[in-house]
Amino acid sequence: MENEYPLMYGIGDLRMGKHPIPDLGPHEVLVKISKVGLCGSDLSVVYKGRLGDRDVPLPAGVGHEAAGVIVKCGSAVRNLRIGDRVAIEPGGNCRMCDFCKSGKYNNCPDACFHSAAGPTPTPGMLARYFKQRADLCFKLPDNVSQEEGAIIEPLAVAVHGCRRAKVTAGSSVLICGAGPIGLLSLLVAKAMGATNILTTDIRESRLSMAKKMGSDHTLLVKSETPQELAKKVAQLMGCMPEITIECSGVDDCIRMAIFATRSGGVVILAGIGTPEVKLPIVNAAVREVDLLGIFRYNNCYPIAIDMIAKGLIDVRPLITHRFKFEEFNKAFEMFKAGADGAIKCMISCE
Amino acid sequence: MENEYPLMYGIGDLRMGKHPIPDLGPHEVLVKISKVGLCGSDLSVVYKGRLGDRDVPLPAGVGHEAAGVIVKCGSAVRNLRIGDRVAIEPGGNCRMCDFCKSGKYNNCPDACFHSAAGPTPTPGMLARYFKQRADLCFKLPDNVSQEEGAIIEPLAVAVHGCRRAKVTAGSSVLICGAGPIGLLSLLVAKAMGATNILTTDIRESRLSMAKKMGSDHTLLVKSETPQELAKKVAQLMGCMPEITIECSGVDDCIRMAIFATRSGGVVILAGIGTPEVKLPIVNAAVREVDLLGIFRYNNCYPIAIDMIAKGLIDVRPLITHRFKFEEFNKAFEMFKAGADGAIKCMISCE
Amino acid sequence: MENEYPLMYGIGDLRMGKHPIPDLGPHEVLVKISKVGLCGSDLSVVYKGRLGDRDVPLPAGVGHEAAGVIVKCGSAVRNLRIGDRVAIEPGGNCRMCDFCKSGKYNNCPDACFHSAAGPTPTPGMLARYFKQRADLCFKLPDNVSQEEGAIIEPLAVAVHGCRRAKVTAGSSVLICGAGPIGLLSLLVAKAMGATNILTTDIRESRLSMAKKMGSDHTLLVKSETPQELAKKVAQLMGCMPEITIECSGVDDCIRMAIFATRSGGVVILAGIGTPEVKLPIVNAAVREVDLLGIFRYNNCYPIAIDMIAKGLIDVRPLITHRFKFEEFNKAFEMFKAGADGAIKCMISCE
Amino acid sequence: MENEYPLMYGIGDLRMGKHPIPDLGPHEVLVKISKVGLCGSDLSVVYKGRLGDRDVPLPAGVGHEAAGVIVKCGSAVRNLRIGDRVAIEPGGNCRMCDFCKSGKYNNCPDACFHSAAGPTPTPGMLARYFKQRADLCFKLPDNVSQEEGAIIEPLAVAVHGCRRAKVTAGSSVLICGAGPIGLLSLLVAKAMGATNILTTDIRESRLSMAKKMGSDHTLLVKSETPQELAKKVAQLMGCMPEITIECSGVDDCIRMAIFATRSGGVVILAGIGTPEVKLPIVNAAVREVDLLGIFRYNNCYPIAIDMIAKGLIDVRPLITHRFKFEEFNKAFEMFKAGADGAIKCMISCE
Repeated sequence: MENEYPLMYGIGDLRMGKHPIPDLGPHEVLVKISKVGLCGSDLSVVYKGRLGDRDVPLPAGVGHEAAGVIVKCGSAVRNLRIGDRVAIEPGGNCRMCDFCKSGKYNNCPDACFHSAAGPTPTPGMLARYFKQRADLCFKLPDNVSQEEGAIIEPLAVAVHGCRRAKVTAGSSVLICGAGPIGLLSLLVAKAMGATNILTTDIRESRLSMAKKMGSDHTLLVKSETPQELAKKVAQLMGCMPEITIECSGVDDCIRMAIFATRSGGVVILAGIGTPEVKLPIVNAAVREVDLLGIFRYNNCYPIAIDMIAKGLIDVRPLITHRFKFEEFNKAFEMFKAGADGAIKCMISCE
Repeated sequence: MENEYPLMYGIGDLRMGKHPIPDLGPHEVLVKISKVGLCGSDLSVVYKGRLGDRDVPLPAGVGHEAAGVIVKCGSAVRNLRIGDRVAIEPGGNCRMCDFCKSGKYNNCPDACFHSAAGPTPTPGMLARYFKQRADLCFKLPDNVSQEEGAIIEPLAVAVHGCRRAKVTAGSSVLICGAGPIGLLSLLVAKAMGATNILTTDIRESRLSMAKKMGSDHTLLVKSETPQELAKKVAQLMGCMPEITIECSGVDDCIRMAIFATRSGGVVILAGIGTPEVKLPIVNAAVREVDLLGIFRYNNCYPIAIDMIAKGLIDVRPLITHRFKFEEFNKAFEMFKAGADGAIKCMISCE
Repeated sequence: MENEYPLMYGIGDLRMGKHPIPDLGPHEVLVKISKVGLCGSDLSVVYKGRLGDRDVPLPAGVGHEAAGVIVKCGSAVRNLRIGDRVAIEPGGNCRMCDFCKSGKYNNCPDACFHSAAGPTPTPGMLARYFKQRADLCFKLPDNVSQEEGAIIEPLAVAVHGCRRAKVTAGSSVLICGAGPIGLLSLLVAKAMGATNILTTDIRESRLSMAKKMGSDHTLLVKSETPQELAKKVAQLMGCMPEITIECSGVDDCIRMAIFATRSGGVVILAGIGTPEVKLPIVNAAVREVDLLGIFRYNNCYPIAIDMIAKGLIDVRPLITHRFKFEEFNKAFEMFKAGADGAIKCMISCE
Repeated sequence: MENEYPLMYGIGDLRMGKHPIPDLGPHEVLVKISKVGLCGSDLSVVYKGRLGDRDVPLPAGVGHEAAGVIVKCGSAVRNLRIGDRVAIEPGGNCRMCDFCKSGKYNNCPDACFHSAAGPTPTPGMLARYFKQRADLCFKLPDNVSQEEGAIIEPLAVAVHGCRRAKVTAGSSVLICGAGPIGLLSLLVAKAMGATNILTTDIRESRLSMAKKMGSDHTLLVKSETPQELAKKVAQLMGCMPEITIECSGVDDCIRMAIFATRSGGVVILAGIGTPEVKLPIVNAAVREVDLLGIFRYNNCYPIAIDMIAKGLIDVRPLITHRFKFEEFNKAFEMFKAGADGAIKCMISCE
């Protein structure tokens, strides 16, 4: 048995190759990948050679949103069996540092992130097979498809954001940016009981999607100042939102997020853009509007799977494009071109 | 203008009378009562002369679950106008003690509770008119009926319990007792994203109601021991629940709640029964299963109203019996008799 | 009986005058002021006519750090008697809005702040007499002096910051800026069990004070970049601090605070400077370093008083200058000049 | 090299023996034990053959409060070197279950507890050598002795209790029972800023120790009812305590703890006694007095070590008796006899 996956050898240079399959440790499993979703960070890796504020060491694998089927189990694996369909959590934390032992394993400095997104470059999940720790593979119930399984990863980001923001029954939530993370945050916030949600974007098509997915209000962002936008938000919602989930990473949107959020509220920084941004920090400070970042997630996969399995949310409308494994370059190009209406692009590895 | 309401002069002795309407303070409003729901604590007052572990001073008013229409506003009232339909929060905290100033106003020792349920006996809300502080009257949106408005009170109890328990997306919740508070807790837990709920009761009719309202599982309690029941709960749910909301107040149910709850989880003590109960406290302690009581609610009315207004929950099926104002004694007797299928009994004061 | 206090009629134009003493409401008391401390915000009011991002409406009173003696009680006052020595909390929240009812009364939009610092300009506490709500006056134990009583106000700010930061046993804390708030935060953090504290400043004299008050480490800030300073902090402390309390309000210090704080940690924004600051927000976001502002305090006075009374902290070394009531203009000028070694300047109104 | 340690073969039958030293895994270390403290649970194991509500499988090792010196490191160990003096955390959680991954590793069902206290009986720490995971061995600073290192274990219990109770500056704390856990909780509560502490016990000698260690008040428990004691507590403290740390495990003390605690407060169940106790649960529920158990600790060793190293607390007065390794049976007998004034008994294994 041999593995096959593309590696990135330079900017935009992604080439398929054959590779051996490594042995399994006692607590590891081998997953035959079914579906892989593409993410903005994959784009940044392939076309900029960068992730966040870091250069990506080459060659690099790609893909970290995946579901598959267990084909082999390490000797000590108890929670999974061959044939189980699973969503794969892409982390690889050390389990021994203060972060890991206190439950914040996403902050573990040794956490590799399969695909280029971690300190240790490893094969990505856009592959025929993927080896992972058994405790990071989560069995999918029969009524959750492999495509839904591949969306668990960005959904876990949305769950982490909404948990950090303490969204609950009656929450009023502003979501800036109706891309995949914004729309998933909208779904999660609603499922947690938010009763007043406004979604912003610069594209009408995305706002219609948000509307369809249950956003109580939408706001098309044009050339208003952050303060003007904040006022419009309050008018439309009938109040200043307690929680803002900023998913755009755009400077003016982060500024708007601060002005728009109710005193004592919270802004979740989910979107990543310019490393340094000029912020109205006195306004945030004196109104006790807290700015909380999110980095991936911890302990969110089981929740995300349950939410789909129990019908709390329906992520399927987000999948707008599908490609075969061999078409991976085409998928990246389409995704880069940013076709109108494109939200989540899914590659089948079967 | 004169008020009219029944007072309780002795056990089971509830008599209608005419009374003057007091003047309004600058921050108070006068509400013409539309609907009043009856609660188990009203029964305890009228037929036992007791509330919790306290005797009720006579004469005592009854009724604390009410909605009405504003007919008069104090000079400084800004948040309400004549004609507004409102749900009335029955508290009357001091606003100056440590509890009030830190947001736990339900623990304020001076909090009177309109109807007999507080230290200061006052007219109940089962009346033609009721005077209350404007900040404790909450405007109902057009799509929330007066009957729904009267259910906001017990719904606020359920919201408070679910908030103290930190129910959120993916929570597994055991609800002991499918009376009004149990069923409302079920609705609220679902609206907050709970994905695995089991409801218990000793009556099949109540379990069918729970099932209809979205309980994933139900368990008819017969003569099992608490430990046996706890095992059945785990089998049916596929796991031990993280959260148990104990609404029965029955000794064996509280014991079962402890055995059934997952280590590190929480039992909410919503049901009030025997003052002293023998509890497996070592089991709770070494598994860090926390026992948290709830007393009324704080800051829950706006959330409860929003949940109904936005369609997150539908409380209407809970209203099984309706009476006219003049029939109040009949209502109490029916409620006391405990007709099968009876959940919430509503009296119209219009 | 007549009151006497200075009002500010223009930039730097502070003039003493005689004024009537208003009647007391039933829950109010009249305090004969003993001591008033001067604060940086008083300076900003008097010499810039501004507070934070707001212009101050004239004429304006000054002073909000005060202690005095009760000379008159409203009819309903129960917690205080004539002759009681008290620290006065300068707020005046509405007690009826969502903020007040949920315990965050410092975020109440109607909260006036005696002295110019609130929406409603009122007489300051730099006066012979001051009228206040009885629940905002806190009795001082015999072993707490009037000067210490006047320091309760800035101490409450430090308590609020340390509470928001969840400083506890074993916390590592970086304090940026060794002015009054920085030094008080140092004392509070130590009293809450912080075991590793580093204080920064640009003046050696302030760092010696910090050292004397128990700072484990100090760092003199020269012309290093924020990243360089962050590295020095980690070297000196032996770890990155979990908590940073930024008390300088200086742009580069806020940037340094972000870089210096451990992943998953928190930066408290206590210092107020430039309204808009360029911040390394991606660094903060992906490391989940939370930015939390503080605005005054809520429910902190009793804690602050207890800490002094029980000997947990000694604030007396902070009082470096003393003036008589009549010398108020001299006090302001000295404070403005910023004499080396000056920390807290106290005016006696007796 | 050979190990030597006593095993318990039957009630009161503890016999020394020689045993091989097992090989180290890559992340493990071998510790030469210096000091071992005896704990009430050791007594229960040896003289009752029981721990909590479980029988102890034989033969069983004893001792779980230990410090020693690293003599060998597994190949992957980075945080420790040969010669390092360490306090040893006795757990052995799985690191893969939901409890471990969310930071509550003390609730891990697979957590063995070296000495008999876990599901998997293993050699105790009362031995010449002990093998443990490197991430559960914590380096002691130069100014922390081996005896202090051996007290880190019960101190971690006290830290965990005070953290769960959220003791902070200004907290009022009632401590029931002035044994080792009670006295250590007193020290920790003070170090976290508690300003009003009352300690109870049935022995004057223990109360003098509590007084010496900083308890603001003490109360000798005689034959009062729980309610009477609760009243005395309030009188002595000048208020009802917000937090009660129940360390006695005695039925009447747990009842008293509930009555004595302020509404909205918390009772920590640290003492383990009768499996089932009759509790005034309605009183606790309607006053929202929460009952929280504690089981060992998580992430508390570094804090406990820091507190000693930085001089926040001095645990040395607790060590009242010392024995040599060979005298282990004498130590157990003395400890069982409960000599007056005996608090902590320390065995030297060097």
